[in-house]
Amino acid sequence: MNFASDNVYGVDPRILAAMVAANEGTARSYSYDNLTEAARARLAQVFEHQVAVHLVTTGTAANGLALSAATPPYGAVICHAEAHIAVDECNAPELFTGGAKLIGIHGRGGKITPAEVEGVLKGFIRGEHDPKPACLSITNASEAGTVYRPAEVKALADLVHAHGMKLHMDGARFANALASLGCSPAELTWQAGVDIMSFGGTKNGGMMLEAVVIFDATLAREFNYRQMRGGQLVSKSRFLAAQMLAYLENDLWLDNARTANGLAQRLAQGLARVKGVRIGHAVEANEVFAVLPRAAHEAWQKAGAVYYDWLPDGLEQKPGPDEVFARFVLSHATPEDAVHRFLALTKK
Amino acid sequence: MNFASDNVYGVDPRILAAMVAANEGTARSYSYDNLTEAARARLAQVFEHQVAVHLVTTGTAANGLALSAATPPYGAVICHAEAHIAVDECNAPELFTGGAKLIGIHGRGGKITPAEVEGVLKGFIRGEHDPKPACLSITNASEAGTVYRPAEVKALADLVHAHGMKLHMDGARFANALASLGCSPAELTWQAGVDIMSFGGTKNGGMMLEAVVIFDATLAREFNYRQMRGGQLVSKSRFLAAQMLAYLENDLWLDNARTANGLAQRLAQGLARVKGVRIGHAVEANEVFAVLPRAAHEAWQKAGAVYYDWLPDGLEQKPGPDEVFARFVLSHATPEDAVHRFLALTKK
Amino acid sequence: MNFASDNVYGVDPRILAAMVAANEGTARSYSYDNLTEAARARLAQVFEHQVAVHLVTTGTAANGLALSAATPPYGAVICHAEAHIAVDECNAPELFTGGAKLIGIHGRGGKITPAEVEGVLKGFIRGEHDPKPACLSITNASEAGTVYRPAEVKALADLVHAHGMKLHMDGARFANALASLGCSPAELTWQAGVDIMSFGGTKNGGMMLEAVVIFDATLAREFNYRQMRGGQLVSKSRFLAAQMLAYLENDLWLDNARTANGLAQRLAQGLARVKGVRIGHAVEANEVFAVLPRAAHEAWQKAGAVYYDWLPDGLEQKPGPDEVFARFVLSHATPEDAVHRFLALTKK
Amino acid sequence: MNFASDNVYGVDPRILAAMVAANEGTARSYSYDNLTEAARARLAQVFEHQVAVHLVTTGTAANGLALSAATPPYGAVICHAEAHIAVDECNAPELFTGGAKLIGIHGRGGKITPAEVEGVLKGFIRGEHDPKPACLSITNASEAGTVYRPAEVKALADLVHAHGMKLHMDGARFANALASLGCSPAELTWQAGVDIMSFGGTKNGGMMLEAVVIFDATLAREFNYRQMRGGQLVSKSRFLAAQMLAYLENDLWLDNARTANGLAQRLAQGLARVKGVRIGHAVEANEVFAVLPRAAHEAWQKAGAVYYDWLPDGLEQKPGPDEVFARFVLSHATPEDAVHRFLALTKK
Repeated sequence: MNFASDNVYGVDPRILAAMVAANEGTARSYSYDNLTEAARARLAQVFEHQVAVHLVTTGTAANGLALSAATPPYGAVICHAEAHIAVDECNAPELFTGGAKLIGIHGRGGKITPAEVEGVLKGFIRGEHDPKPACLSITNASEAGTVYRPAEVKALADLVHAHGMKLHMDGARFANALASLGCSPAELTWQAGVDIMSFGGTKNGGMMLEAVVIFDATLAREFNYRQMRGGQLVSKSRFLAAQMLAYLENDLWLDNARTANGLAQRLAQGLARVKGVRIGHAVEANEVFAVLPRAAHEAWQKAGAVYYDWLPDGLEQKPGPDEVFARFVLSHATPEDAVHRFLALTKK
Repeated sequence: MNFASDNVYGVDPRILAAMVAANEGTARSYSYDNLTEAARARLAQVFEHQVAVHLVTTGTAANGLALSAATPPYGAVICHAEAHIAVDECNAPELFTGGAKLIGIHGRGGKITPAEVEGVLKGFIRGEHDPKPACLSITNASEAGTVYRPAEVKALADLVHAHGMKLHMDGARFANALASLGCSPAELTWQAGVDIMSFGGTKNGGMMLEAVVIFDATLAREFNYRQMRGGQLVSKSRFLAAQMLAYLENDLWLDNARTANGLAQRLAQGLARVKGVRIGHAVEANEVFAVLPRAAHEAWQKAGAVYYDWLPDGLEQKPGPDEVFARFVLSHATPEDAVHRFLALTKK
Repeated sequence: MNFASDNVYGVDPRILAAMVAANEGTARSYSYDNLTEAARARLAQVFEHQVAVHLVTTGTAANGLALSAATPPYGAVICHAEAHIAVDECNAPELFTGGAKLIGIHGRGGKITPAEVEGVLKGFIRGEHDPKPACLSITNASEAGTVYRPAEVKALADLVHAHGMKLHMDGARFANALASLGCSPAELTWQAGVDIMSFGGTKNGGMMLEAVVIFDATLAREFNYRQMRGGQLVSKSRFLAAQMLAYLENDLWLDNARTANGLAQRLAQGLARVKGVRIGHAVEANEVFAVLPRAAHEAWQKAGAVYYDWLPDGLEQKPGPDEVFARFVLSHATPEDAVHRFLALTKK
Repeated sequence: MNFASDNVYGVDPRILAAMVAANEGTARSYSYDNLTEAARARLAQVFEHQVAVHLVTTGTAANGLALSAATPPYGAVICHAEAHIAVDECNAPELFTGGAKLIGIHGRGGKITPAEVEGVLKGFIRGEHDPKPACLSITNASEAGTVYRPAEVKALADLVHAHGMKLHMDGARFANALASLGCSPAELTWQAGVDIMSFGGTKNGGMMLEAVVIFDATLAREFNYRQMRGGQLVSKSRFLAAQMLAYLENDLWLDNARTANGLAQRLAQGLARVKGVRIGHAVEANEVFAVLPRAAHEAWQKAGAVYYDWLPDGLEQKPGPDEVFARFVLSHATPEDAVHRFLALTKK
């Protein structure tokens, strides 16, 4: 009953097999190999757009590198106050951007609205005493397990583009968003105005399966230097590329995401029926946030359920003293049985 | 006949098998898993010393992070002018250290001597107008395929410690140095005064097999923050740890290095017999540098031999207009047959 | 009737005279001159403590350099959300610290309380995924024209020291705080636990009269390198030192601050009597914040009163649609007559 | 007999008088005042070109800020190995550029030639493993007291522009170069291909008289943010502007430079006649480098002559064991009598 993170599970066997298969023979190093070339071509197909692709090893690095192209060091990146870049990456965005400033919006349900962004932009009244608003970063699916629709992304993109800013999407759980919405990768990204994205697959079956995917060619300029300088140009790059190719083959990525999302729905529905439990945010991807009675929570953990307490930021009705706010993450690899056993537990 | 780099070959099957085996079940993420703990313990055994170990994904990141602990941003890192950190990492050391300055010494055979370091230190006469000399970084085996003996390391360590500086060793080919010298890991590192090292295994059979190994506990302080901020804290860390454990098991690392070194010897001996060829640096590890007659060189490349032209820095007798300076890298995975075929070619 | 800023006025004639006098003869450059030595000694006397003193040219640089000693690049600096370092220095703190993160508290009246700091610290639950809490920065007198008492500073200092953090004081209007409280410089700084401060005099009669004053000797280590690297080691340093000496002589600094504070009191009392005006924050230094009826505001500006609209952050009762939030800054150099004329205007 | 530096002398009385005069009344702060506007207009006239002008407080900051616009953080700045930016600014260029790398050329007489630059550029064969060559920085007058002619500048500019690079001129002693050559400011800068320069007057009579002057409008973009973020946007900016205006008025800057250059000629000619003395570099500005017999040197210093030993880099015939390499700097403010007395001394 491990719902701690999508990172506690290993690698999808098809991805692992592709890595093993990639081990044959010699290959050029540092991203000049055939597999990397193939992965790039495949992503262009998937996105139905010319893209620059840089395979990296962590989502934090993907975000940092992407932001470094989207903001000058004297710029500001607007994001959700609970965005991964803001609270989970220990100043990596500041390192890679050379010291840009993140400005957090405490939006509901892990999402931010054009009105909220406009509100922040109105605060930039000091000219060069303020940083220059350079980029908006949104996470889709969000850190609260909610999902931006293409129209929502487009509204944000239109706003920030009108201010000369760029739109970055942290897609650490991009497949979960796609699976939830049933739209195409293109619809949710460049057609909705996304300029650059962090394309993550590690949480969805990869080993180190992360890429910066760039739709706006001006941001792709000299990105290879950024990647090398960031310590993210892997010598045996074929092993990153093999993961990406297997991930995209036969919609493995979407299938896995659908599985995880489905498990989250099941867990949420079961939990919602438990007396004293309140579901925290809309469950639209593979995460369930819920306020739990403390006594029940303690009993469940004792019985072997693994999940994290979470800070109730962005939650309207805060937990009381006898309550706990908890996050459950579901993965394609989470055994269905774990969900069943946990829900059985909650019925006691 | 691919001698371009030790990175063109794949992963040692035993290491790959260990990665596959590590895929079972759930594991804590971000380096709190059991395998990472085991890898740390194993390295402490191997080095016969308490060490802090941080598993990362590239040698460039290992170097950058290690140096960030060994120099303040207003510091200077003395290194060989042809060190990997100086010429192959696109300002990554500057990024990770926050802007420290590398000062290169054009030492013979890819190595630097205490006298040369002293000469550089004598130039620091401007107080705070100069950066503060903070760290000496040496590469062992060096980028020129030569090796520092423990006594040579110790002489450098004693000198820099007397100046309040730290000693970093870039061990991207550390196993090759050990195999060449036949000494213990401890003798070549902390017993010789090394404070912090980049321990690399990617070139010697790993996939992404790199670690920062810290002997001086003061440099280990808060290093976990450095790693996270550098985008180098891998979520599914067990797959890095599995590589390290397999690499160290049954002396796989030393065996592989011995094989590669042996092939280099064979290649060098064969080449040395070719008319017009001059071996460039002492062949002490798995690299062979040689001045080749241009006509022969072109014939060999046409016949399928793959290796790089190289800049003849640090070479005493520079190549003439009809000559080429070339680098051959041998790996444990280089087919013996490739060496034979190449040498046969050179005899024509 | 210029109340726009304390920076619109020139230099106190006594300070200017001292600069002119300092022009005699030769002097060693880069802070090794006799005047700089004297200024350092004088500050040690003034603070009744051994201090390291670095004279710099802007308050932004003083803050950035001070913070660079008080936080590692992977650290967090807690401050008021409206602190000068947070909203008026265009990422300079991020530049000088190498990318540390500022975390803002929306405290009332421009001040922050131990409970608020504790609340923020409780959010640091992610280990190295969070930055490391390294420093608390408070501004005294605050950006809202309020003042921290020594006991308030001490309570904050005790809290952050217990967490291994440092306390920085931005003293851009330090003299105004002292004059307001009537306590000694020592009582308001190191005796209350301040580790390092930005000591500003530019707003209070100087030309470029800023210094980093360090009480905690561990933070002073190698600070000269930080200063040089920051582009803040002035060659003809005697002209900075002359300002500081004149500023401290015969309590000029405190006299000027008293004058400015007194004018602020007079302006506030007059404004408070105007129908529809609400004083925004407690007036404890040389700034007056007030909500004004828009019509009156427009009339006054038309009549020649100069002051800025301000963002009503941290204000409890926000301005309505027919109101304006305004900041008035008083200086020792503000003509008394300007205050009289403005108050006369408000009576119409 | 103080020849230690052009910084040991104070401020030209006309410049000081202008600063005193600027103290009247109120002025807008942070470079929006009328004097700053006037100084900008004046520089445009002087250069016969549209220029962006940013007044800063130190030459180090001017260089760092200028370079930050001319190179990305993953870029390389080629310069003389003894350039001020390389050896006298304690990693400030690295700080302001976000970690760009300086690559030094050991050119003769403090200057570098197109052939030398081409040689360095030929070393950039590693693609993104190297930094990207972004900028060439030359100092005019050079740190060795020599001067680049317009045609020499143009040859360098043409070369680097052909490689997509920018040309920066460190003009800490720009007036001395102009006075030496008798050409116009335009001829020596933008007409010769300079894109951005550090325009220094502190060494030639100013107090803090430094500016970034930008000829290439693309480099001027958002420079105000760079300035603020660098801690270099002075609040009472009128006092920097007043210096600049007085400096340029009635050719004060050129007159002062001519005086200093003349004194250097006299000193050099006198020294050259002393037995055992060898003049080190061509004396074309206000500095004299000479190899001195150690015994004479010691006698002169004992008699009160003040000047620095210097590292004999770039000197063809190195000093022997009984010799000393020395630098003498002459200023417009150096009393003629000091030169006479010193030369009298050398005749003994």
